[in-house]
Formats: sequence, C-alpha cells, structure tokens
Amino acid sequence: MSQDVAVIGAGSWGTALASVLADNGHRVNVWVRDPKLADEVNTRHTNEKYLPGVMLSPGIRASVDLREVVSDKPVVLLAVPSHAMRQVTRELAPFLRPDVLLIHAAKGFELESLKRMTEVIGEEVPEPIGKGVVVLTGPSHAEEVVRRSPTTVVVASACEDRMLRAQDLFMNAYFRVYTNPDLVGAEIAGALKNIIALGAGMSDGLGFGDNAKAALLTRGLAEITRLGIKLGAMPLTFAGLAGVGDLIVTCTSKHSRNWRAGYLLGQGKPLDEVLEQMGMVVEGVRTTKAAYALASRNQVDMPIASVLYGILFEGKSPRQGVEELMGRGRTREMEYLGPFGV
Amino acid sequence: MSQDVAVIGAGSWGTALASVLADNGHRVNVWVRDPKLADEVNTRHTNEKYLPGVMLSPGIRASVDLREVVSDKPVVLLAVPSHAMRQVTRELAPFLRPDVLLIHAAKGFELESLKRMTEVIGEEVPEPIGKGVVVLTGPSHAEEVVRRSPTTVVVASACEDRMLRAQDLFMNAYFRVYTNPDLVGAEIAGALKNIIALGAGMSDGLGFGDNAKAALLTRGLAEITRLGIKLGAMPLTFAGLAGVGDLIVTCTSKHSRNWRAGYLLGQGKPLDEVLEQMGMVVEGVRTTKAAYALASRNQVDMPIASVLYGILFEGKSPRQGVEELMGRGRTREMEYLGPFGV
Repeated sequence: MSQDVAVIGAGSWGTALASVLADNGHRVNVWVRDPKLADEVNTRHTNEKYLPGVMLSPGIRASVDLREVVSDKPVVLLAVPSHAMRQVTRELAPFLRPDVLLIHAAKGFELESLKRMTEVIGEEVPEPIGKGVVVLTGPSHAEEVVRRSPTTVVVASACEDRMLRAQDLFMNAYFRVYTNPDLVGAEIAGALKNIIALGAGMSDGLGFGDNAKAALLTRGLAEITRLGIKLGAMPLTFAGLAGVGDLIVTCTSKHSRNWRAGYLLGQGKPLDEVLEQMGMVVEGVRTTKAAYALASRNQVDMPIASVLYGILFEGKSPRQGVEELMGRGRTREMEYLGPFGV
Repeated sequence: MSQDVAVIGAGSWGTALASVLADNGHRVNVWVRDPKLADEVNTRHTNEKYLPGVMLSPGIRASVDLREVVSDKPVVLLAVPSHAMRQVTRELAPFLRPDVLLIHAAKGFELESLKRMTEVIGEEVPEPIGKGVVVLTGPSHAEEVVRRSPTTVVVASACEDRMLRAQDLFMNAYFRVYTNPDLVGAEIAGALKNIIALGAGMSDGLGFGDNAKAALLTRGLAEITRLGIKLGAMPLTFAGLAGVGDLIVTCTSKHSRNWRAGYLLGQGKPLDEVLEQMGMVVEGVRTTKAAYALASRNQVDMPIASVLYGILFEGKSPRQGVEELMGRGRTREMEYLGPFGV
C-alpha cells in the first residue's frame, strides 16, 4: 500500500532510505535545511555532496518547510545525526499526527545525558507517540543501498504492530528487514560499535595480526553486551545485525573513519593530531567517553573501553594498553552469566 | 608448574601450540608420522613445510614413536585434522594414563557419522577419559601465534576442573585463554564457520558489497546458532571466540581457502574446476554437506546452507541463490526464540 512518508534529513543515510521508500512506491517528502540542496534534489535529482554520482528517483521531493513536510504524514522517518536528534524532534513535534508511525535511523547516545535516541525522542514528542518509536539499524553503507546492492537491516520497537509496519514499509528484493523486539539492545549495539572499530584500527596500526583484531572485536562485543544487559537489553541482539553485523562492516572497511582514527593512534600519533588530520568528527572518540561514563555509572567491567579511554584522554600508550588487556587475570568467556557460565 | 605434554601432530596448528607450551616452560614431545620431519624438528628446530621461516624452541622434541610420546604423560594434546581424529585416537588410546588431561584442537565433524570430535574421541578412549575431554578453539592463525602476536582462544569442556587446568597450561602474555562450559557449542561453531566463509567469498565473487557480506556472516551465524541449540549448545557461545571470533578471521582473510573457493564459485566457475584450481581440500565444501544433513535430520531451517548446497551440488547459480535468500518471507531476527522473540 502506497503511503506518504516524511524523511527528515538528507545526509547519505536519509537519502538512501528515501530511495528505498521511493522504490517501494511510497510518496516521499524529504526535509532539508539547505535550500540549495532542496533545489538540487527537486530539479537535478542528485545529492552530490553526500551520494556523489547517484541518480535519485524523481519521485523524491525535497523541501525546507518542516511543517509542510511533516503535517498529516502517517509515517515520519528521522534520519538526522544523534547530536541533532533532540533539537530537530522538538521543532517537528507540533506537526506530528497522534497516530504517526515514527521511525529513527540514528546511531549514538545523547552525550550529555547518556540517553538513547528513543529516550530523547520520547521526551520531545506528545505522550502516546513516544511509546511506539521504531529504530532502524544494522550493517548498511548508504552508498551500497542506493545502488540496490543486497542489504539487511533490523527494526526494533517496544510496539510490535509498529515494528511490523516499519518492516513492510522498507522491505524489498534488495533491502531485507528483520524485526527484533529488543529496542534497548538494538540502539545500544549500534551506538557502541564505533568504539570497537576504533580499537580494531589501533590493533592494525600497532602492526598486530588478524588474531588480535578478531580478539578485540569479539571481546569488545562481549563487553558492550555486558553493558547492554545491565541497561535492559537482550544479549542475543548483540549477536545480530545491530551488533555483530554492524561491527563487521565498520571494522573491516578501510573507509571507516573510526578504524582510520584508531589506525593512526596505533601508529603513535597523538589524538589532537589525528583529529586534525581526519578533519571531521570521529564518532568513536565521543562514544568512548559515553561508554566509559555508562560503565562506571552502572558498575560494568569494560576493559577495552577503559583502555581506549586511557589512550585517548590520559596519555596511555597503545602498546601499554594492549599489554594490560592481555595481562588481565584469567576469566570465563561469558562473565555475565553466573559462575561456571550457566 | 612445568609439565610433560604430548602433542599429537605437527601441522601448523600443532606446532604453534607446541611453541606456546614450550614458552610456558613445559616439556613438549611432539608425535609425527614422518621421520624426516621429526629429524628436522630435533636438529634444525624448524618445520619448513607448515611454518616456513619460523625458528622453534629447541626444547620441543619430536618422535615417530606414538607409545613413547604418549605413555605416562599427564597431558596429551590432539592436534590432527578432524578426518584423522578417530584413527589416531584409536592408535594412542592404549597408552593413555587413566587420569590424563586430554585436549583436542580440531575443527570439524566426522563426515560419515556427523559426530563431533569429542564424541569420536569418547568412543575410542577408555571410559573415564572420554568424559573430560577439552576442546581448544577460536580465532587463531598458527603463523601469528608462533610469532607471539596477541591471540585469544577458548577452552570448553563438560568437566570444569580439566577446563581450568587447560586454561592454566596455555595462558601467557600473548596467548589469552577463556573458558566456556559449553563444549557442544564450541565444537559446532568451530566446525560450521567454514560454510559461512564459503558464502562470504561467493558474495564477494558476485561483486556484492560490504552490506551483503555482513548480512551473510550475521544471518549465517544465526542459522548455525539455531542448529547448535537443537543439538544442545548455548546460543551465546556462537557470539564468542569459537563463533563470531573465528568467523571474522576466516571471512576477512583473503588467505582463507574457503573464502577463495567461494569467490571463484561466485565468479561463475563450476565446482570441479574450483577444486582443481585450489589443489587441496576445501573444508567448507565438505562441511556444507554435513550441515545440510544435520539440518534435515534435526529439522532446522538453514536457508544459507541449503542455498550453498544447491550451488555446490545441484547446479544452482550463485545469483539465483542470493535472490532466493533475499526473497524469503519476512521474519524475526531471532526465530529460535518464541513468537515476538521472547
């Protein structure tokens, strides 16, 4: 059934998701801040800044008028970065239908409050809407999605009905959507995976091999799972698309900013120099701070995040960090389970 | 505490584990079939065929006399390939001490019987020994271990005491050993990961992107987890070193034979040509048969293994296989849980 969908934000991911929706026959209105970009989308059907070389569906219409884009729409997709989520949601909240299907596709915490995105959104929208927000996450480079390369994602929500509607909305022959009722786990896995990508890059920068990188990824996954359980997540969500899947695309792609920043740190470059050389935000650096704070607030042991924090902010050398991790006392693989693992 | 350890087999993995044990101060006797290799290890301290360019500890002694190597040893490590496990165990069984700590480091099923390695070993050794066998598995290229690059592995056993003794035996500053009581899961994860590596190579050979590969790895993991649960494994073991960790080293390394075979198949080469070009056994091809048989015997849905089986043995085209996988009905991420995932 063809629907009217508002897509908020036309970065690479918002634009790619708008393309999937247009391919599925929905009428897509995209909100952007920049009038020039709106004009480019409407007349040339491109978004050269974020998805160079890609021809968009002419059915995708862009506008700078938030009220016009959001009002009366049965479906609204929030595709803005995590640090902009609260502000944008606040701006559009007055225009939302009470029965709107609200979906977000951001990965990260609100850094000041350490809140998840659905918590932030829930605080900004009128009562009933906040309870049924859906997150869409998983292993998905926008560049590949917009070229219709096979991709899988997961939608999660506390509301089964809305989750199934979101699945129907996006699913097609190249974009396969799974459901997972564990909203908390899906959001935490997506937000924390950048830390591990940073660590994997560092391992490579230090000249270690595939064994060390696999160790970092797997044990990193174990500690974000541990934190997730404390925050109410289901452990198996971290073994799924939001966790393992996203980790694999992020950590094995040399295009990952987080991997690249870690690599330079591993080679011995100081943080300020690395950040200057990268010339843009490195999400994993900010997230390490958030994870470190969440770990101590919730009394969860996160050795890899702690070591990364020491390297980033307390002058610890990467090599010393690895030695600390390898030199820890002997332990079980699943410490979050009871003694003897069961 | 320094111990006498018999290592059975001097392939790359047996030799690397012998090196770890020698580094930890244990007295290591390696059994090999080939007198020339025994001589090479004892006089030149190398194993050029399996670990070219590596200098071994002079403390490692090799012998072709199985009785001499095994008799009276408190610890015996079986480091032979899975297809040789039954025969070798049968040969050495008469020489085992009743209180021996028996560890194996093979990945795979016995193909005819579809039995796990500890099941095979248990059938060949006297009664009490079989109950306490320990498996050592995880993400570990031998070439990196022998160069003391940081590595993590997991030991699993039905017997906690023996598992802890195995952990103590191997653990050192570059070789970190975790314990997991889920023997069944650790063995199944290690055995089945080769199928997924084959699939990942096929995806790359078809020219798909990182999203598709991450999808295959994650959903592949989900289906081997599903089979594992049916066979008595704990699902979280598959998210650990034996599962996710091993999957990552196998699937991201271009040196992997399984990845390479999959890549060639994805490019449209027929199986017999691929196997000829590889010039050696491709474990994933044999394991796909085993997984297919186990799935139907236990009535577990394994769409990726089924599609691989069709491509390998029934002339299905890889592209058609991918279309089938992407075109399946909508589903939950964790089908092995109850309705609505909990």
